Order: sequence, then C-alpha cells, then structure tokens
Amino acid sequence: MTRPRGRAHHDHDDREPQGRGMRPLKALLSFDDALALAMDAARPVDRTEEVPLLDALRRVAAEDVRSPIDVPLVDRAAMDGYAVLARDTFRTGKFKPVTLRRTETVYADGVPRKRVTAGRCTEVATGATMPSGADAVVMVEDTEREGDEVKVYTPVHPGENVSLRAEDIPRGSDVVARGEALTPAKLGALAAIGRDRVRVYARPRVSIFTTGDEVVEPGGPIRPGQVYDINAFTMASLVRENGGDAWLQGCVPDRLEDLKAAIGKARDADLVLFSGGSSVGEKDMILDALAALGEVLFHGIAVKPGKPTVLGRVSGTPVLGMPGYPTSCLSNCYLLLAPMLRRMARLPPAAGRSVEARMAKRLVSAIGRVEFHTVRLADGLAVPAYKESGAITSMAHADGYIEIPANVDLIEKGEVVRVVLF
Amino acid sequence: MTRPRGRAHHDHDDREPQGRGMRPLKALLSFDDALALAMDAARPVDRTEEVPLLDALRRVAAEDVRSPIDVPLVDRAAMDGYAVLARDTFRTGKFKPVTLRRTETVYADGVPRKRVTAGRCTEVATGATMPSGADAVVMVEDTEREGDEVKVYTPVHPGENVSLRAEDIPRGSDVVARGEALTPAKLGALAAIGRDRVRVYARPRVSIFTTGDEVVEPGGPIRPGQVYDINAFTMASLVRENGGDAWLQGCVPDRLEDLKAAIGKARDADLVLFSGGSSVGEKDMILDALAALGEVLFHGIAVKPGKPTVLGRVSGTPVLGMPGYPTSCLSNCYLLLAPMLRRMARLPPAAGRSVEARMAKRLVSAIGRVEFHTVRLADGLAVPAYKESGAITSMAHADGYIEIPANVDLIEKGEVVRVVLF
Repeated sequence: MTRPRGRAHHDHDDREPQGRGMRPLKALLSFDDALALAMDAARPVDRTEEVPLLDALRRVAAEDVRSPIDVPLVDRAAMDGYAVLARDTFRTGKFKPVTLRRTETVYADGVPRKRVTAGRCTEVATGATMPSGADAVVMVEDTEREGDEVKVYTPVHPGENVSLRAEDIPRGSDVVARGEALTPAKLGALAAIGRDRVRVYARPRVSIFTTGDEVVEPGGPIRPGQVYDINAFTMASLVRENGGDAWLQGCVPDRLEDLKAAIGKARDADLVLFSGGSSVGEKDMILDALAALGEVLFHGIAVKPGKPTVLGRVSGTPVLGMPGYPTSCLSNCYLLLAPMLRRMARLPPAAGRSVEARMAKRLVSAIGRVEFHTVRLADGLAVPAYKESGAITSMAHADGYIEIPANVDLIEKGEVVRVVLF
Repeated sequence: MTRPRGRAHHDHDDREPQGRGMRPLKALLSFDDALALAMDAARPVDRTEEVPLLDALRRVAAEDVRSPIDVPLVDRAAMDGYAVLARDTFRTGKFKPVTLRRTETVYADGVPRKRVTAGRCTEVATGATMPSGADAVVMVEDTEREGDEVKVYTPVHPGENVSLRAEDIPRGSDVVARGEALTPAKLGALAAIGRDRVRVYARPRVSIFTTGDEVVEPGGPIRPGQVYDINAFTMASLVRENGGDAWLQGCVPDRLEDLKAAIGKARDADLVLFSGGSSVGEKDMILDALAALGEVLFHGIAVKPGKPTVLGRVSGTPVLGMPGYPTSCLSNCYLLLAPMLRRMARLPPAAGRSVEARMAKRLVSAIGRVEFHTVRLADGLAVPAYKESGAITSMAHADGYIEIPANVDLIEKGEVVRVVLF
C-alpha cells in the first residue's frame, strides 16, 4: 500500500522497476527543494554569437561594449535657433530685444565656416555643429528676423541649448555590459556609437519530445485510445517566451530503448524536455532511461498539479520529464521550466506581466504543497477557472494563475492576490 | 516672436512654409487629444493569414474555432490504477480491503476488450480508455497486488478518477474566439482538437524612414556633422514588441521631393514612420510633404520630451513623424506609437511589465504637459535617470519610465509611482 511520504530524495532502489504492476510515487520533494535542484542543473549557456543589431532585441549581451567615439562627436545645437555669444543676450528682455547679425546658416549636416563674434549669430538647426565662438543657442521662438537682422528677446546662459561633445557617451565609456538584456534603448545606444552588430549569448537549445503511444500529432485523424499532442506546443511556447530555441522532435514510443535513443539524439541540446512518461504507469519508462544513461535528481514534487515530474541529468544536460496531463505539464512549465530557462538564457527572472486582484471566492489549498490555480479576471476579481488537471481549457479559458505557497492553506474571499497573466 | 499657445488644432495656413527662416511650433495639442486622434487614425488591420500553430503564439485569432471532436474522445482513466465498479469498494477501509480479480491491463493507447463486472477490475494507465461496466478508478497507491488478485483499501465514488468524454471540450463548443490573443494554453487547446494551423490577423506593416542628410547607418565611418541612425532601430524594436512587422527603409534626404517619394513608396504599409524632420527647421519638410499628399492631423503636442511630433494621413494610411532626438523619438514610441500599433494589431492595450517604486527625490513637472521621465530602480526606489532629450543614455541606462499626467506638477520624494519597465 502507500508508503510513508517525506522530503527525502529518492535513492536508487526506489527508481528500479518493481516488475510487478505500476510503481507508486513515494517520497515527494518539496517544491522549493525541487526548484533549487532544477536551478542548479540549469547552467547558463556560454556559447555566443554575433547578430545584426535588431536581432539582438531582448537577447543578452555577451561583450562589454565601450564607445569608440564621443557622442555627440562635436558640440551641437540642441534647438533650432541662433548660435550666439551668451553675453550678447544678457540684457535682453521681452520689450528690449538685442539685434544680432546673422552671418551664416548651418543645417544639421552642415559644417560651420564662420566664427561667431560679438553682435553676430549663426542660424542653426537642431543637431547642427556649433560654430566656433558661440557658446549658446537662442530658440527660434524667442527671436524675430528681418533679412539678416535677428532680434533676440530672451537671455541665454553659456551652454544653454547646446549639447556638448561627449555629454551623452564619452569615448571609451561603457555602453552595454556583458550580461545585460538588450532593450530597445540599449540597441539605440549601440547604434549611436556606430555598432550594427553585437555579440550575444546563444539561446538555450531545447529538444522537446512527447512520449506515449497514444499521442498523435494534430493535423491528422484520431481514433479512441488516442489523443492529440498538446504538450509539445505548450512547452515550445514557454521555451520561446523564455529565451530558448525550441526543437520539436515529435512523439516517442514509451519504450525504454526508444527513450534512450531519443535522449542520445538530443546530445546537442542544452535541455531536454519530455512530457508523459513520468507518472507511475508500468510503461512510464523515462525514469529507467534516465537511471540507465545518467542520474535522476528528483521524481515527484509537492506541487498541484504537476506532482509526477522528474528531473535527471545525462552527460551534464538536464532532462526534465513533465507530466502527460496538459495542465500539469503547462503549470510546471510556468513554475519550473521558465525559471530554469531564464537562468540558462541569462535573462532576468521575471517574465510575464502580473496584476493584483481580489479573490472572488475562498480558495482552500493543501499545506506542504505549492498549488497553481488558474483564474479569470472580471471587474478586478480573480475567479477560479480550474477544472481538472486533464483539462487544457482550465488554462486556455483563464487569464492567468496564482501560485499558493506550501505554507498557505487558505485564501479568503476578497483577499488580494497577484495574478500572473498568461 | 512667440505666438499665443493653446489647444487649437493647426489650420492649413499654419503649415505652409513661411519662406523666411525657421517655423516655430505654435499651438500645441494636448497629449490626450493627440492620442485620441492617433488612435482614431490607427485602424485595426483586416488582412488575415493562416499560420502553423507555433507561429501563432501571441498573434490574434481571426476565426472562431469550434471543436470538431469531444475532448476527451471517450471516458478515460484519470489515474494509474484499477477500473472498478464503485459499489464494489464502498465497504473497504484501511484494515479491511476488498479483493478484486484483474482481468486485463489497458495502457493509455489501448482499447479495452473485457467488460468489468462485480468482483473484477481492469488495470488502467492514466489516459486509458475506460472499460465498459467500470465507473471509477482506484489509484494504484490505494491497492496491493498479488498476481491477478488486487486488494483495494479505499472506497471510490462513481466517477472518481475518471475523465468523462467531452468534459474538457465538447464537440461544437467554442475553443478560441476571433480577436483573442493566442496564449500558450490557447495553442494547447487548438492542438487538443487537432488543429495544426490557425487563421490569425496579419501584423501591421510598418515602413520606417529616418530623415536628415546628417544621418548615417551604423557600421560605417562617421565625420563631424554626422550622426549614426539610432531611431530606425528603436522604432523598429517598438514595432516588433507591439505586434508589427518593421520594414526598415533607410535614410531619406530632408527634401520635399525625396520625402514625397518615400511616402509614395510606402503605399503597401499600414503605418509609415519618419524620424527627424518634424521640428521647426527650414529643412524639416515632412509637414509640407504630408500637406501636399494628404492631410496633417496634428503637429506639436504637449508632451516632454517629444513635442515636435506630427501625425498625418495619406490615402488612408497614417504617417507618424517622430522627433529626430533619440530620446524624444523613443519616448513617443512608448506613449503614442505602441498604443496605435496594438490597436492595429488587435492586441490588448498594455504591453510591458511595470512595477511600483518610491521616488528617490522630488520631481517637478509642468502643468498642461505630459512628461516622460526615465528612472533607474535601486532598492525599491525610482531614481531619475534623465539627462536630456538628445541623450540616448537617458534611456539606455535606465530601467523604465514613469509618465506624469498633464494635471500633475509635482511628485514628492517617497511618493509611490508606477514604473513601466523598458
């Protein structure tokens, strides 16, 4: 019958086939312990590649980038207007303009030829190189012009409306540091110093297998005793959203030799994912395959749904065996796979958006077990959407999930919870 | 000199070249009015395309999908164990098991051949088709087996541990509705009913031009009077992150005929973006090009940075002219372009993640103007990171931004603000 459950790791004997019927899941590892083992097994990828700038969006820089130039390259006008000697304007006012003589016009791409001296000015466009002598720009709005006579109605101080050479990015300064995720603005800064390519860390390569003789690919016919493969698509989606490259490898029969061959075939992957085959059925051979080829790190975790999850390692590559049930599989993708992948991809931990909402009804949870509850959002309320772990619509028709920690057994109606959006 | 400013739209006379120097920006439109005009000009794209399932992640469904099958197809075991007549177990207990005779084993892909009658059971794997007669499954953990004798230690009620045919998705029911953004779980639900492709709305096509003779592409050399193109990359990044297809069209000289040709060339686009050329310089011709080919909807908005922004429409296609200053351009990408694009792409309004933080110091803002302030996050504090609108590092070295509404003139030190992360 049932054996005592505890927080012990499985020892090797527990993983051997019993040869007489199905093997119960026994000692469940706490979710936190499982996550810690998983994070330890998930090593940041060291491979790098150089990519065109735009392809680097949200990738992680694998080089420290220093600027080879000053940005701006030279002192530039920061406004359309007139480059002046500031002291020529000190005594101006709304009713007592000073009149300066325009000697030249410099557009953004132009090069000034004339020096600005007392009583003179150069018309400048935003971005234009400042003429020598001038130390400020009067905005066009604060002037009035007749031919080459420019009336200035407002004083400016030295440096006003001027972008100084190097004030944005001095030559030799750090623009992007290794390990930073590249935002739109960081790509902009790389462009600003003339970079059109950047070295980034390679995406973790994730081989995805679905096990089970009953599983068939969508797109074809189905007969009783068969189900369409759901998990390959949800796992691949989570892999993509967390910085990985998903390699769909199709369905593998739930036989030891086939599973061993699949793991062998995934030699180039940084992470191998299976779904199905980690429960307690006689035909769930993934444990045996892992034990034969490498080691089992855990089997069975205190999380609902998603208990029959297995983590192993073969030749240094983590192999994660997800439950076959679509909702169990996908919830563990959110709780376990996503943090592993983000670590491998060197991305910051948090991925999705979350919102606060009040529970629409009381929610009871088991102590000692992390629970994953899907909810719909309606008028600021979180309404439980969970059907059962086999039902993909528990998640497809929900807006997000709440994670109830192992030490919480109850969320009262009206309590504020954080909903991570799908 | 300066003319009165107000919330009036520009009339056509205001947009004509004055022929004598640079043209000041006059009446500024409020940001809310500008956004309303922009959202009105941004029409949801009606084109659709059918794509493989995984390519539909985060795209928007363009069809109502009803299920052609029941999911599950048949009644299935929800646990590894023994399919039984529930009433055979009613009197069992921890110390008084009932013994049933196993007549068959059905794996997940198997088809049961024998009916379960009183005193008998069928060994079933999770997912196996339920044998006729049986109405419940006893979990393997609650049994003990010797040969074909199975001792059951726990009663089950009818329906226990059974997934009923159609309980997840009944045939004919709605799985995905037109207009829904496709999450990982929704792709899972589509796979569950056998779909390997789905019809989605096409991404808005966005042609991106940078104007200005001083702008050069990164990757080559630069000389004084020139700057590298930053805005094409930041605009394209925002386009991608908000559901659009970015078509980089390179730099266009800031001359009327070139701009008109560029707009003409963008005939297939759903939205045309320019950066530069919307300020008040004599050479900023985008206004004239828009007036000549179509209409100007606004020019100059009460937002800082980002004031010299222009929106027009040519043959029904919105044309957005962004400021040339990288930070002004990018901040308006967040405030104006992103919501436009999400509407065109039919995506939900909010895009990025945001967090709450306390202002590390007092921030003063002008009444009547929306202000965009970049901040760094440190120990839960939002530290202003803004340098000046020309400095891309104002954003590249920041973690996110806060938007200060037009009717707020001050954020006190310690006040809680919402930081949208870059």
